[in-house]
Amino acid sequence: MLEELKQKVLQANLDLVKHRLVLFTWGNVSEIDRKTGLIVIKPSGVSYDGMKAEDMVVVDLDGKVVEGSLRPSSDTPTHIELYKAFPKIGGVTHTHSTYATAWAQAGRDIPFYGTTHADYFYGDIPCARSLTQAEIEGEYEKNTGLVIIERFKTDDLDPLAVPGVLVKSHGVFAFGKDGDNSVYNATVIEEVAKMAALTEQINPGIVRADRFMMDKHYLRKHGKNAYYGQK
Amino acid sequence: MLEELKQKVLQANLDLVKHRLVLFTWGNVSEIDRKTGLIVIKPSGVSYDGMKAEDMVVVDLDGKVVEGSLRPSSDTPTHIELYKAFPKIGGVTHTHSTYATAWAQAGRDIPFYGTTHADYFYGDIPCARSLTQAEIEGEYEKNTGLVIIERFKTDDLDPLAVPGVLVKSHGVFAFGKDGDNSVYNATVIEEVAKMAALTEQINPGIVRADRFMMDKHYLRKHGKNAYYGQK
Amino acid sequence: MLEELKQKVLQANLDLVKHRLVLFTWGNVSEIDRKTGLIVIKPSGVSYDGMKAEDMVVVDLDGKVVEGSLRPSSDTPTHIELYKAFPKIGGVTHTHSTYATAWAQAGRDIPFYGTTHADYFYGDIPCARSLTQAEIEGEYEKNTGLVIIERFKTDDLDPLAVPGVLVKSHGVFAFGKDGDNSVYNATVIEEVAKMAALTEQINPGIVRADRFMMDKHYLRKHGKNAYYGQK
Amino acid sequence: MLEELKQKVLQANLDLVKHRLVLFTWGNVSEIDRKTGLIVIKPSGVSYDGMKAEDMVVVDLDGKVVEGSLRPSSDTPTHIELYKAFPKIGGVTHTHSTYATAWAQAGRDIPFYGTTHADYFYGDIPCARSLTQAEIEGEYEKNTGLVIIERFKTDDLDPLAVPGVLVKSHGVFAFGKDGDNSVYNATVIEEVAKMAALTEQINPGIVRADRFMMDKHYLRKHGKNAYYGQK
Repeated sequence: MLEELKQKVLQANLDLVKHRLVLFTWGNVSEIDRKTGLIVIKPSGVSYDGMKAEDMVVVDLDGKVVEGSLRPSSDTPTHIELYKAFPKIGGVTHTHSTYATAWAQAGRDIPFYGTTHADYFYGDIPCARSLTQAEIEGEYEKNTGLVIIERFKTDDLDPLAVPGVLVKSHGVFAFGKDGDNSVYNATVIEEVAKMAALTEQINPGIVRADRFMMDKHYLRKHGKNAYYGQK
Repeated sequence: MLEELKQKVLQANLDLVKHRLVLFTWGNVSEIDRKTGLIVIKPSGVSYDGMKAEDMVVVDLDGKVVEGSLRPSSDTPTHIELYKAFPKIGGVTHTHSTYATAWAQAGRDIPFYGTTHADYFYGDIPCARSLTQAEIEGEYEKNTGLVIIERFKTDDLDPLAVPGVLVKSHGVFAFGKDGDNSVYNATVIEEVAKMAALTEQINPGIVRADRFMMDKHYLRKHGKNAYYGQK
Repeated sequence: MLEELKQKVLQANLDLVKHRLVLFTWGNVSEIDRKTGLIVIKPSGVSYDGMKAEDMVVVDLDGKVVEGSLRPSSDTPTHIELYKAFPKIGGVTHTHSTYATAWAQAGRDIPFYGTTHADYFYGDIPCARSLTQAEIEGEYEKNTGLVIIERFKTDDLDPLAVPGVLVKSHGVFAFGKDGDNSVYNATVIEEVAKMAALTEQINPGIVRADRFMMDKHYLRKHGKNAYYGQK
Repeated sequence: MLEELKQKVLQANLDLVKHRLVLFTWGNVSEIDRKTGLIVIKPSGVSYDGMKAEDMVVVDLDGKVVEGSLRPSSDTPTHIELYKAFPKIGGVTHTHSTYATAWAQAGRDIPFYGTTHADYFYGDIPCARSLTQAEIEGEYEKNTGLVIIERFKTDDLDPLAVPGVLVKSHGVFAFGKDGDNSVYNATVIEEVAKMAALTEQINPGIVRADRFMMDKHYLRKHGKNAYYGQK
């Protein structure tokens, strides 16, 4: 069942290591099969070395394990909330990548400073608020999803146009059309986070780049008039 | 047609990965054959993994694809303007390398702080201005070339003595006598950008190094009295 | 004698290189066999390249070499004091890893800024005070252990809940249930140290994350109600 | 002639790449045979890839090439001055390693902030002054050696106890008992330079560590009462 998807999700999880986004087991990728509503996700606390496709866990949108002998990632309830709230996304990646996590710990949105950012993010990369004590002591991982969704609703953000978010004092959740694409976006977030920190160090008075540059770069790669890449 | 040059341009593009100047497809190298006026350039949005010499695209100085089944880099019009304005250059490299892009996003020229810089750049590494809304909404990539050329004309810079430039809020364009040499200069820019950011962190009051040191180091490697390297 | 443990301690020492925590011979790992009170430790000043299990040195809790033809690490008396004062720990790692050592040189505890930290450390990562002239000119390495123990007593810290410490102007000592686990914690300290330095750079006014978040994250991974990982 | 030494100097030069101290050809190592007064040094501007022992150049203390078909490093006159002024040293390494060069460009001595530093350097790592216009326009590379020697004389420094120096706006010269040991010390300088920059970032008010700690750490590794390492 979902063998091909398990192989794909395994590969996406291994790509976290290749792109240097994780230490030890500090990250996870999932992908949803929208036809069946089933999610394939990394098992909890399992090392990437020697991980196999059959170790991937299948859960439904209620969080029930449908297949697999291992426990799913402890972050599974966060993934589920995101899939439920954002019907267009097909994959979610969670990391504690170094520079992006530093921005999350600093509690700041990553400002739009240039075209590297605008090629993938149509606006700042938002930082969702910290959870309250009640939210943390209750269904913590589910509530992590809810504060992300709250931020996207408040700011009226499209999760494919702003395919990732920081969570205050925590880390990164990236989205994508599938698991692999969410890993790609998590990699972009880390690089953009590093560049933005350096940009402010080099010029403490810097302000956001021009809005019309953002429009140009984002729309050159996305939407019906895109002309970057092959047809 | 131009088979040898395609192989050379492929190798120069792969060297971007080797020198850690690119993530994913975020960079491109071209080289011009001045006899025929034909340019060989990386295809747009194609991954470096498994890229082959026959994937390289041949365009003329009007931007017309002369050979190749793939679309050329979306930055091709920038390369073309540079080749037209700077007859002495034979290669162009575009990257979003981390430290250099941070300087571009910060909107600052990289000041001459030492001999590593002066061994390759006879003066600061300039940062061209941002494009206006009209320039961005018009022929964006062509206009990117024009703002670079504007800066070189305004400051009366020689593109082989100052073989690279930042573009505000964007990234790096490096030049060279051929494609390979432009990759070399792009690598120098990234290293010099990192050193300069650290220099200012370690000594916020630092000023440029002495002009006579710049003369010595640049001329020890370039021009008719050069004595660095083998005859 | 203790052949299996020597192999395990060798591997833990080699993992220092794998996790990029050491240059040259700048680090060492030991593990204690609590039944016999014997400690297996890296030999002093020996390169990791080509080091073999039989090079590991066995010492007792008085520091007497019980087996091995090489001198034990010069830091052995520090390890011994830690094993004597902290009966629950089974392994000790000493490194001069870059970011953590910078915090040690800065003489600051690493503040709790996020969940990456709280997943492993229940509170700030403490920085023990410098040694006095008398402590340094006396039994230096033993006294290094004693200032660490002093800090843990003063603050009433549990060495498995706060499994590592900085020593002012010196470096890192990490603890664990065995040698391998102490290397893991040394790796966490380096990553958390890097993130914390960046966090303060990105937001100089940042304060510690919420205490209830620390409780949640630490207890999700440790203790009888832990639910992270596999059963 | 000096075949064994050529092999050793080749290996020391290749170790510059292994320790990530050089980009392209930006560094060189030499060693002197004190019996004959002959120096073996890297050829100028030659890539480390594919470099062979027979490419090494033999020069005498007057700078005359005694053997070898290639030109010696353009920095040879600096090496010669150091060998003449410092009879105890047997090897010299020159690099533009990133962090150390940033300190050189910042024009600051690297302060003694901890034991990593004191294990190899008995005092701050000095930064020699810039050369005057006359010194640069005259025998530049020779004068680079002379400003280093001037600093060591002024401060009464022992080049084996302070086995390296920065030159303002330029880079690093490290010394050692042989070429390999000078590469080791150049590696230490880069790591200590990185740690010191981070230390000041984390605690801008930090002052030097205690002098008696420096005494202890340096003398634990050097001199007749050393007890670090194997007998």
